[in-house]
Amino acid sequence: MTPIILDCDPGHDDAIAIMLAAGDPAVDLLAITTVAGNQTLEKTTLNALRVCTLAGIHDVPVAAGCARPLTRPLQVAEDVHGESGLDGPRFGEPKVQVVDEHAVDLVHRIVAEHPEPVTLVPTGPLTNIALLLTRYPEDAARIREIVLMGGSTGRGNVSPYAEFNVFVDPEAAAIVFGSGVPVTMCGLNVTHQALVTPDVVARLEALGGELGPVCAELMTFFASTYRKLWGFAAPPLHDPVAVARVIDPSLVECVDAHVAIEVSGEHTRGATVVDLHGHPGRAPNAKVAVVLDAPRFWDRLIAALGGLAPAPE
Amino acid sequence: MTPIILDCDPGHDDAIAIMLAAGDPAVDLLAITTVAGNQTLEKTTLNALRVCTLAGIHDVPVAAGCARPLTRPLQVAEDVHGESGLDGPRFGEPKVQVVDEHAVDLVHRIVAEHPEPVTLVPTGPLTNIALLLTRYPEDAARIREIVLMGGSTGRGNVSPYAEFNVFVDPEAAAIVFGSGVPVTMCGLNVTHQALVTPDVVARLEALGGELGPVCAELMTFFASTYRKLWGFAAPPLHDPVAVARVIDPSLVECVDAHVAIEVSGEHTRGATVVDLHGHPGRAPNAKVAVVLDAPRFWDRLIAALGGLAPAPE
Amino acid sequence: MTPIILDCDPGHDDAIAIMLAAGDPAVDLLAITTVAGNQTLEKTTLNALRVCTLAGIHDVPVAAGCARPLTRPLQVAEDVHGESGLDGPRFGEPKVQVVDEHAVDLVHRIVAEHPEPVTLVPTGPLTNIALLLTRYPEDAARIREIVLMGGSTGRGNVSPYAEFNVFVDPEAAAIVFGSGVPVTMCGLNVTHQALVTPDVVARLEALGGELGPVCAELMTFFASTYRKLWGFAAPPLHDPVAVARVIDPSLVECVDAHVAIEVSGEHTRGATVVDLHGHPGRAPNAKVAVVLDAPRFWDRLIAALGGLAPAPE
Amino acid sequence: MTPIILDCDPGHDDAIAIMLAAGDPAVDLLAITTVAGNQTLEKTTLNALRVCTLAGIHDVPVAAGCARPLTRPLQVAEDVHGESGLDGPRFGEPKVQVVDEHAVDLVHRIVAEHPEPVTLVPTGPLTNIALLLTRYPEDAARIREIVLMGGSTGRGNVSPYAEFNVFVDPEAAAIVFGSGVPVTMCGLNVTHQALVTPDVVARLEALGGELGPVCAELMTFFASTYRKLWGFAAPPLHDPVAVARVIDPSLVECVDAHVAIEVSGEHTRGATVVDLHGHPGRAPNAKVAVVLDAPRFWDRLIAALGGLAPAPE
Repeated sequence: MTPIILDCDPGHDDAIAIMLAAGDPAVDLLAITTVAGNQTLEKTTLNALRVCTLAGIHDVPVAAGCARPLTRPLQVAEDVHGESGLDGPRFGEPKVQVVDEHAVDLVHRIVAEHPEPVTLVPTGPLTNIALLLTRYPEDAARIREIVLMGGSTGRGNVSPYAEFNVFVDPEAAAIVFGSGVPVTMCGLNVTHQALVTPDVVARLEALGGELGPVCAELMTFFASTYRKLWGFAAPPLHDPVAVARVIDPSLVECVDAHVAIEVSGEHTRGATVVDLHGHPGRAPNAKVAVVLDAPRFWDRLIAALGGLAPAPE
Repeated sequence: MTPIILDCDPGHDDAIAIMLAAGDPAVDLLAITTVAGNQTLEKTTLNALRVCTLAGIHDVPVAAGCARPLTRPLQVAEDVHGESGLDGPRFGEPKVQVVDEHAVDLVHRIVAEHPEPVTLVPTGPLTNIALLLTRYPEDAARIREIVLMGGSTGRGNVSPYAEFNVFVDPEAAAIVFGSGVPVTMCGLNVTHQALVTPDVVARLEALGGELGPVCAELMTFFASTYRKLWGFAAPPLHDPVAVARVIDPSLVECVDAHVAIEVSGEHTRGATVVDLHGHPGRAPNAKVAVVLDAPRFWDRLIAALGGLAPAPE
Repeated sequence: MTPIILDCDPGHDDAIAIMLAAGDPAVDLLAITTVAGNQTLEKTTLNALRVCTLAGIHDVPVAAGCARPLTRPLQVAEDVHGESGLDGPRFGEPKVQVVDEHAVDLVHRIVAEHPEPVTLVPTGPLTNIALLLTRYPEDAARIREIVLMGGSTGRGNVSPYAEFNVFVDPEAAAIVFGSGVPVTMCGLNVTHQALVTPDVVARLEALGGELGPVCAELMTFFASTYRKLWGFAAPPLHDPVAVARVIDPSLVECVDAHVAIEVSGEHTRGATVVDLHGHPGRAPNAKVAVVLDAPRFWDRLIAALGGLAPAPE
Repeated sequence: MTPIILDCDPGHDDAIAIMLAAGDPAVDLLAITTVAGNQTLEKTTLNALRVCTLAGIHDVPVAAGCARPLTRPLQVAEDVHGESGLDGPRFGEPKVQVVDEHAVDLVHRIVAEHPEPVTLVPTGPLTNIALLLTRYPEDAARIREIVLMGGSTGRGNVSPYAEFNVFVDPEAAAIVFGSGVPVTMCGLNVTHQALVTPDVVARLEALGGELGPVCAELMTFFASTYRKLWGFAAPPLHDPVAVARVIDPSLVECVDAHVAIEVSGEHTRGATVVDLHGHPGRAPNAKVAVVLDAPRFWDRLIAALGGLAPAPE
């Protein structure tokens, strides 16, 4: 089992990523940390607790991190994820509590104490990870890998060339890609291969219990905003792709490439400038995901969530 | 017949664009102007004369324009087009002369005097066109349309997000897109649909005379650099796509969109930032080509070149 | 006599610069060209004609140039120079006409035909000069020198680090400083040494005729806006400093330095980044004015204007 | 007594700032923290210990912070401060130890626990302070004030418009100025009024003991590099000016102004863009030092150092 920490901003696709990470036997989910992004830190943290409650994840610590990007004001994705950040279903009071430790200190402690090198899986803005690497630079040598959802080799979503997570905190992304830790980037180019078709929604619903229908409602809401904003027939389930890459690298094919983060463009801030052609002077600094094995991805995801669903009472 | 002026920097694909413009009955090629880009102005002008000589284009004036971009040093594409800018075949002394008038003054004179509004078709850096609009701002109201090869809705070629023509003179591109003249952008996203497959090369060769084999040799050289630099199985014939859009708009499908030119990014200079989703505050300022009808494009192109080829001896 | 062309955007201080250039025996004023800057081109051109009429300058051609900066929308200085660009006195209909030739073509023709190399003295945004150097690159070798008012070695006026002329068209400034023509920059650091104290106003008024009182009124208006906007006790008479440098170089002491134009900063656009310390890799590309001999400057200026004032009737 | 923490990168002027803060009765020096800047973190930390040893400062904790700027590689000022960062005198082994706590955690603990709001006095790059405000955003409301040495209202030192501390970590400066904590900026414009003339050196030497001569040697070395690099007749003692502002605000006169940090300019990165004219939309976000009462400053500084010098033997 690969030990991982999931750093997220739930968020509909983060919610499924949490369940995938908790339910799949190939990874050992040591902690869930939250960051401001899709919504405010308060809301993304509450949403993480809701998801843990829904999925019966009681033994994984949840810690809150940074409430805003390093140098810029926070921009949330309320148009995509709604006012709560997890619009669609109704949630009761969460039965899981947030721990009284800053996300970055919790991650550091685990990285320092765990017998094996830990993999970080950030699926929101990279503020927490950048803060970790700034406060505890020695951790860079101890982290096994950072497998993140963010960026794109082609077009963006929040602007023509920028993907939301990197756009929100490009300076944090620059710190992460420049840190020397092995980085794998799962960008829009590959997550747009994970489309939640009606067939997928049906498979989620069929998981039964409370979990199945709630997942289906989440995806139905997510589909509605993607249809309205970008005209997608079926919405892309971004964040679980990064988790899937850790679970089974053969699910997500990568190439080595240099990734530069544009922090100063007037119209391109937050672009991940991926050199796929090996231009001189641009030695690869990341693995960049290019192809998703979608059928196997969905099978694995459904199986993992199925393992979380409470046995019929 | 639509009256056009072709502003180019030959260049292998510019060479074919010249022949297409001269040979197709739907357009009336009033002048050919040259600019520094694929190679120095001296070389691109010589190449225009060579192409005219080869194709028997004797009645179209050829005028030289700007030898360097507005504010930046010239960067040529010798890796793509070779030392001459038109490597591959051997050319004799051209039998056509350049006129003794600056390209910009020639274009202005034609625009001012021609009975119908003229369409400009730039297939190189936009330096000449920007100079025209700066020196003769009144021409903006007289030009029918600017249909250009340049930019991309997705990835670039000279850098991950920048296409060569716009990268070489982004300030000129900013002037053109901000000029108020109707602009149609044929970028890499659509020109990469015009792939010179071996079948196309064979059709070119079969045109016979001197023209057929020389075109085939040009394409063979062009294929070799595209294969080496970017791994293309067949090279994209960029510039004729812009001419084709004027010849028959149904060959190249466009959408209305806002295009911003990135002039200040550290890693994204020269990107054409195309908003395909109609974000608020970004009213369309251009038509952006998205789909090429490739079979009809090739038929039309071969037919036009066939009309130029001397009758069999 | 040094042959010069004054390229200006009158403007209160431009008005005095015109009179100084026309009245001083050391320079031969071959032409006056206008550009948009302090006000629209229409207004700055009208103002040039008004000044020529007032000062009896009938044999110097006045030609209009560019109506807007190369790549950016025009920003005028109505807060400094008023709605007319020359607020304060009342002017009648000008008795001098603008010539029917674009400023840039007129300058080119003079530069090409004049027996001696000509010095250009731009006191507005550098749009015309940049256009000249782009359209007629061969003129770069024929121009003796460009002695301009613009920039600063320290603080700016329109923004903390940008002076108005360079801020309005930084790309044009970049073209001029990168052209290879010898450039002398008279920036705010030196023009702020030319303060129009009440004593100077009295000397202007004492010139008599119509000219004296009108000059005094111009300076009184100019003083009022400088007092209000920047708290100056007496306003700086920028533009005549550049003319004075040509008239008698010993009036304006210069140092050799590298000047870079900031075109891409978020808060510093239009800054003239002057390296006064000879950092490696920054070879001087300009002479930068640092000290004005103010007493001799005022004597020379009053004498020149005195020569223009019509003899008492 | 005003409780302060000095965050520094000794550095010759930092060394004197430490002694001033430790020796003046108006401030209570709670801690000294170090950051990479004038030299590497290892060297600036060693230098802080050397200064404490020299000056008999044994009861103030010294803690090391960040070894590099947030997003950029470290650039040191070896040309100004020498290979050790404190070239000139010879130092023995320090008799003071660094504490085993990260600078940022130490500062947070003191800020949280001290009965009064604490003033931070950063005299190096602002990396530690930015990290503090990112990791412990709640401290922003508890810090009394940040009185920093850095920036300039006019020209810079490391580049024409950038001062070293801000240039080295402009993103950190952006975080500090945007944090909402009251900030006072003591920039080059005011620290260049604190010139270490031979008279000052003589007064330092006359302090006697080991401290006097070492201070004099430090200033003699510092004078040599300032003379060589920038032609100063006497070097400016930057960092103690910020300490002096806390000791007695009447020593350093300030104005309210908006300060923007340029993080993206091509030639102006790290400029502190200070709006001294209250342009609309630029509400003051800082106090900016403009005038130093130099005679009283030197008296106060010599007196403070005199209090540290061991009684005459």
